Formats: sequence, structure tokens, C-alpha cells
Amino acid sequence: MPSNNHNAVDFIIDRVKQKAFDEISQFIEPLAHSDKARLIESLPKSYRATIWNEIATESKAETLLELHKEVRRGLIEITDEAELIRALSCMQMDELADIDDDLPLPVVSAMVETLNNQNRQRYNAVKVYPDDVAGGLMDVDATAVRPDISIKAVIRYLRQLRSRTGELPEHLESLFVVDRNNYFIGTVSLSDLISYPSHLSISQISKQNIPAIRSLDSADDVVKTFEANDLLSAPVVDESNKLIGRITVDDVIDYMRDQSEKELLKKEGLDQQADLFAPIIQGSMRRAVWLGINLLTAFSAAWIIGMFDASIEKLVALAVLMPVVASMGGVTGSQTLTIITRGIAVGKIARSNIASITRHELAIASLNAVLWSTVVFLISWGWYQDWELGLVFAMAMFIVIVSGTFAGALIPLILGKLDIDPAIAGGVILTTLTDAIGFFTFLGMATLFII
Amino acid sequence: MPSNNHNAVDFIIDRVKQKAFDEISQFIEPLAHSDKARLIESLPKSYRATIWNEIATESKAETLLELHKEVRRGLIEITDEAELIRALSCMQMDELADIDDDLPLPVVSAMVETLNNQNRQRYNAVKVYPDDVAGGLMDVDATAVRPDISIKAVIRYLRQLRSRTGELPEHLESLFVVDRNNYFIGTVSLSDLISYPSHLSISQISKQNIPAIRSLDSADDVVKTFEANDLLSAPVVDESNKLIGRITVDDVIDYMRDQSEKELLKKEGLDQQADLFAPIIQGSMRRAVWLGINLLTAFSAAWIIGMFDASIEKLVALAVLMPVVASMGGVTGSQTLTIITRGIAVGKIARSNIASITRHELAIASLNAVLWSTVVFLISWGWYQDWELGLVFAMAMFIVIVSGTFAGALIPLILGKLDIDPAIAGGVILTTLTDAIGFFTFLGMATLFII
Repeated sequence: MPSNNHNAVDFIIDRVKQKAFDEISQFIEPLAHSDKARLIESLPKSYRATIWNEIATESKAETLLELHKEVRRGLIEITDEAELIRALSCMQMDELADIDDDLPLPVVSAMVETLNNQNRQRYNAVKVYPDDVAGGLMDVDATAVRPDISIKAVIRYLRQLRSRTGELPEHLESLFVVDRNNYFIGTVSLSDLISYPSHLSISQISKQNIPAIRSLDSADDVVKTFEANDLLSAPVVDESNKLIGRITVDDVIDYMRDQSEKELLKKEGLDQQADLFAPIIQGSMRRAVWLGINLLTAFSAAWIIGMFDASIEKLVALAVLMPVVASMGGVTGSQTLTIITRGIAVGKIARSNIASITRHELAIASLNAVLWSTVVFLISWGWYQDWELGLVFAMAMFIVIVSGTFAGALIPLILGKLDIDPAIAGGVILTTLTDAIGFFTFLGMATLFII
Repeated sequence: MPSNNHNAVDFIIDRVKQKAFDEISQFIEPLAHSDKARLIESLPKSYRATIWNEIATESKAETLLELHKEVRRGLIEITDEAELIRALSCMQMDELADIDDDLPLPVVSAMVETLNNQNRQRYNAVKVYPDDVAGGLMDVDATAVRPDISIKAVIRYLRQLRSRTGELPEHLESLFVVDRNNYFIGTVSLSDLISYPSHLSISQISKQNIPAIRSLDSADDVVKTFEANDLLSAPVVDESNKLIGRITVDDVIDYMRDQSEKELLKKEGLDQQADLFAPIIQGSMRRAVWLGINLLTAFSAAWIIGMFDASIEKLVALAVLMPVVASMGGVTGSQTLTIITRGIAVGKIARSNIASITRHELAIASLNAVLWSTVVFLISWGWYQDWELGLVFAMAMFIVIVSGTFAGALIPLILGKLDIDPAIAGGVILTTLTDAIGFFTFLGMATLFII
């Protein structure tokens, strides 16, 4: 039996080739939904339909939720509508709202038809919010109680709910206290509920110190609130402070995971939704944009070099050494860029301390500039036996390291003012600048002092 | 009143200058510990001691826990031992074990002295584990019950615990079921405990499907288990399946946050523990290593250019255009490198599908190679009125884009075999390769066909 996803991919490909479909469905069935999804995404397209057919209808909804958008769409297309409706019928409203953009319209209509009035209202309530605000992360399973009833009465209510419906909301660890108009008052944890004397009233044990999250708060702020207060769940209220839902920590974790993946990919101009096996034309177009931008910046560097072609013709060593200057400027600059961008993102860097941080970065860079300028002076002197060339090389290196650092500190601040994400654009702008500065100072000084 | 960390930094710096220390302590006191820590890390060193003195002794322990290692050490150094011992006396054993490396030995001894026998055993139990395994994430607050007692008896026990000690373990949302020898059997959630009829026995409502985490499991595996099962807490067992502690989801989130920060920084050769205001010499040394490696690779590219200096002397356009070739190869290569490295890290790419993924990446790269080779052919033809040069430029561009992609796919696989983290070394190796290939093919082909 394959023990992890790597072997699982081998196993599935092998069994599909042997047409041993029973073994496939036996293997897939006990897997967690997230593992099923990862397995599907790891398989080349031609294998996906086969494994999808072997997943039981009742597992399909949860598996769809775990898939990346593009892969999900592909599978929805090959599933017939009747089965889709059956598969999705046990989905919660907030989950349905998460994926309904990908579903064929008749399926969505059929699903909404089956909801009762209250649930249809809830579905519409969740559907309103985009994915990157609190409302988009919330579910509508918040359990609310009044402040004036006793612990005993609440426990009785929960027992009735269990015996009537067979289950409680998932991840129930807190109840929310509201007044008769549904205005949010406070929070009661199950652990308090179960451990305080049962004659106490809810108002005696409820806590007001956990802030309610507003439905339009950004998802990033939700993450911060959860982290700062070590929350397991939190109430969500509308603009008028009425309780409309809750966010549980597992949804926060999913969001964090997504963000950290996006963070890594966007630096390369890549799209997180991209399927490993996305159609080739589509995959090419996405990357072509990034390559086009890069070509533009590379040609602007080439244009600067072109201004000094007469100098290079006279002293070819300039052409040999110039990429070294530009490259060192790029590396120091992007170290500072990363530190500053990160510091701003986590709220450690602001207008008031940016000056002292920039000074600190420049001090570090200057030491390195002195060190590596000396090193390259010695190397180039040894290589070309030309101390003048070595001196110009070293001076250019010093200038580009210090100015690259300065640019690395300034770019995220300027982009921030312009509301441009420094994680996407910062690297490209920095490299363009350090290349330009590197080539210009090195070739320019060489032209002035040597040629 | 300052509303966020940015304004808070302003506020503190201003008040320190005015020596308005009372206002500082009033401002700091209500902040969450994580906010206190962030504020300290955002301040230049000279301000830190002042704000640290204004933090109440009983808040110092929690604040220390939230700080990065270096900043924490700096503050511990300036706190006198008696106050440290008072501050740390309310710390939990697992928290003490997290920071005791940074404490002066007499303080650690004094702390351990004050623990009772059971707690000292627990402290030693937690201290054994490194930070990157389950044991290092766990706390020892697991609440255990026997399978044969009734729900009513458990609730009575929890109420007694509350009235005796005034509180329950933090984030208590599940109890763990163990036999008389402390072997782990299963889990009971508080929501089941509170909602099932109280005459049922624990064994009737406990669940066996949530896997116990072994103390030596890697922290990454713990994260996966929490994500796959949407857990709020999980039991930790030793090699013989005895319950020794639990991990709560807030510790998992802290670990994830740390990892994603490390991931971003290590690509630039930076260290996550680094203080924004680390001593300049120390900060320089760390980055110097990375710059040194980069200088080496830049000079190896220069050496390749140097082999063709005669050609460049004859046709300076080569020097002008060559950085464009290398740069485009670097960008396509690093797109593929990022996708493959990421895919391996999340378990989507393995031996069995790497061939099809590499083919897929090469297909995408080839389309882009055709597109951009055509574009650069036209540009260089227009610029230099030399179709031969344009053709060589285009051919070199095609070769470097395709081979850069190939390298981007292969490097993480090879590094994986050698047990080297591709996120650290991958980028440097790739750039070295694409620079070398870019300069060599462009200058080499030009020498063969034009010069």
C-alpha cells in the first residue's frame, strides 16, 4: 500500500494502465479529502478523469473544495449535472458560495431551489462577500445565546439540538452572546460553560475582551486578530454590530497557506491558481507577460551599454567585468528590498523608523561595499595587470552596492504610496535600477578616467 | 491614542524624547503581548531599554516569548536576575523550555528549583525535544480521562478543577482518553461532552479517527496533520503510545508563520532570527557570505565572456546584447525552478510525474522561446541593421530559454537527492548556469558564424 503522495502517484498511474479500477477506488476511499485533491493535481490530465470517476459521489463535494480553481473547473466539466447535484447536496451554504462561480448555472439554480428559506437567505448573505474580507471567510453556523439564561439551560439546549439534528456545528468551541435584537455582546467558551456551576447565568461567565470581527475587515486583519489573541473561533458582525456568522481557525489557516504560496509565486510573475498541467497555450501566455516586462528592462540596460560602445571597443575588459558590477548591486539591493518589504508587511517598519532602518541598512552595505570593492580591485588588478581599471571597477562596485541598498529601501516605500504590491513589482524595478546604475557608473567612469 | 504599530512607534519615540514615561507605560499596558513584542522590534536599540522598563513585570515573560531570539537575548541581558526570576515564575514549563537557552544559568536553576516534582519531570520531558519536532511544539496540559467513566463524572471533575484552581488549561476543546497505564485510546471533544446525554460513558462518545501525533514526528508533518483533519488540538504520544502532551492549533499557526518568513528570507541568504537593528558588524558578516558566493558566480560568467574578448573587440554589439540573453534565460529558469521546488515541497511532484511535468514546462518554454526569439530578432535587426547578428541573437535566446527551463526543473531534483534545500541554493546555481549558457552560446555562435 503506497504510504505517501509520491508513491500514490506511481500506484495510480500503474493501476490505470492495468485497468485495475477496483484497486484504485479501494485505495482512494480512505484518504483525507485534501489528499485526494493533491493526488488529482499531481496526475497528468489524462489520468484525472479516471480517478475522479472512482471517487464516491458523497466525497466529491469536499474534494472539489480542496482543489485549485482550474483543476476544479476541469473536473466539474466532465461530471454530469445530475451527479453534481447529488454530490453537492450535503454541502454547507458557505462552501457552496465558495465554488458556485465554477458550477454550471442549472446546477446552482437546482441547489438553491432545494434550500429552505432561512438557508437561502444565509447563502445570499455569504455570497455577497469577496474572498479577501472577513465575510468571505465566515460560515453561518454561529450558535447564539441570550445573556440572561443559565448555564444549565444552555446545556439543555445543546443536548436537544444534538438529539434532534444528530450533530452540532463543526468546531464548536464558543457560543456568542447576543441581545434580543441579535446585537453582539460577548463570547462564552465551551470550557467555561462546562466547568462553571450550572446555576450561573451566561452574562456572569461571558467575556467581552474578544473583539468581534466586522464583515468587511480585510482577511489579513482577521489573521492578525487570530494570531494576536490565539483564537480558535471569532464572531463576525455587520456594520450595525449584529451577529451574522463566525470564522473558525481552520479557515484562517487555509487562508494563510494560500497567501504564503501566492507570496512565493508572485515574485516570479506566476499565478497561484495555475495548474501544474495547465493547457500549454494558457500557461505560456501567463509567463510571456513577465518575460516581456523583463525583456524591456534588459533592453534598457543594453541601451545604456550601447552608449559606451566606443569605450568597450578600446578596452574589452570593460565588457568582461561589467556584469559583475551589476550583479553585486542587484544582490545587495534585493537583500534590503526583502527585509524592508517584509518589515512593512508585518507592521514593523513605518514612517517613523524608516530613516533609522535605512541608515542601518546603509551602514551594513557600506561595510560590505568596502570589503568587496577591495576584493575585486585585487582580482581585476591580478587579472588585467591594470591598476587604473581595478580602481574604476572597485569604485563602481562601491557605488552600486550602496545605491542598490538605498534603492532597495526606497522602492517598497514608494510603491506602497502608489498602492502597488512591492512583492510583485519591487524585484523588477530594483534589477532595472541596479543594472542601469551598475553599467552606467562602471562604463562612465572608465570612459572619463581611463579611455 | 495611536491606533496601530506605525503610529505607536512615533508615539513612543516622541514620549521617550519628552521623558513622559508614565504615558508610555499607560499606552503599553493594554496591548497584546505580540503587539508589545512587535513594537520593541520596531524601535532602534537605544529606545528598547526604556520601553522594556515600562512593561509590567508580570507581562515580561509573555513578551519575551513573542520576540525574535536576538532581540530577546538583548533584553534579558539588561534585566536584573531577581526581576527575571519574578517575571518568569508564572511561565508554563513548555514555554520555559522554549527560551531557557537564552537565560543566564543561575536564573534557569532558580526557576527549576521552584518547580514541584511533577512539574520538574514535565519540564525535563519538554526540554528534550528540538523545536522542529512535535515534542518541541507540545505543551503538557493534556487533560486525560478514562474510557469507563460517565460524561456526568467528567463534567463534575472539570467543575471541581475550576473551583479548586480557578482555571482550566488554555484552549481546552478536547479531552484525551487513556487507559490505566496512560496508553492513548481516543479523543472526546467538549462539544460532544456537553451535548450527549450525561449517563453515557466516555467510551461511547470518544473518537478513534483522530491520529495521535508521535513526539518525534517532524513539525512539518504536524502542520499537515492539522490541515488535513482541520484539528484544533491533538494528542502527543511517546514511542510506546503513552500520552505525554498535546499540541494546540495556535502553536501550529506560530510555526507556519515562522516557516513562511524563513522561506522568503532564505532565498536572499538572510537569516530569520536577524534583528532589524542587529549590530552592524554581525549583520554585515551574514550578508557578506551570500555576496561572496554571488561574486564567485559573477566572476565565472566574466571568465566565459573573457574567452571571447577578441570577438567583442571586433563587434561591440555583442557586449551590448549579451546581458539580454542571460537575463531572459534566468527569468524563465527561475519560473520553472519555483514551480518545481514548490511542487516538491507540497508533495505534488515526485519521481513518477516529474517527466511529464518537465515535458509540460519545456512545451510552455518553447512557445515563449519562439515568441521572444522572433521579437529580439526584429529589434536587433532594426537596431544594428545586421540580420546575421539578429539571427545569432535569436538562436542564443531560444537555446538559453529552453535550457534554462530544463535546468530549473533538474536543479531541485538533484539538490533533493543531495539533501540540500533547493530554496536556498537553487537560485544561485540556476543563475550561474543560465549566465554561463547565455554568454557562451551567444558569444560562441557569433564567433563561429559572424566574426
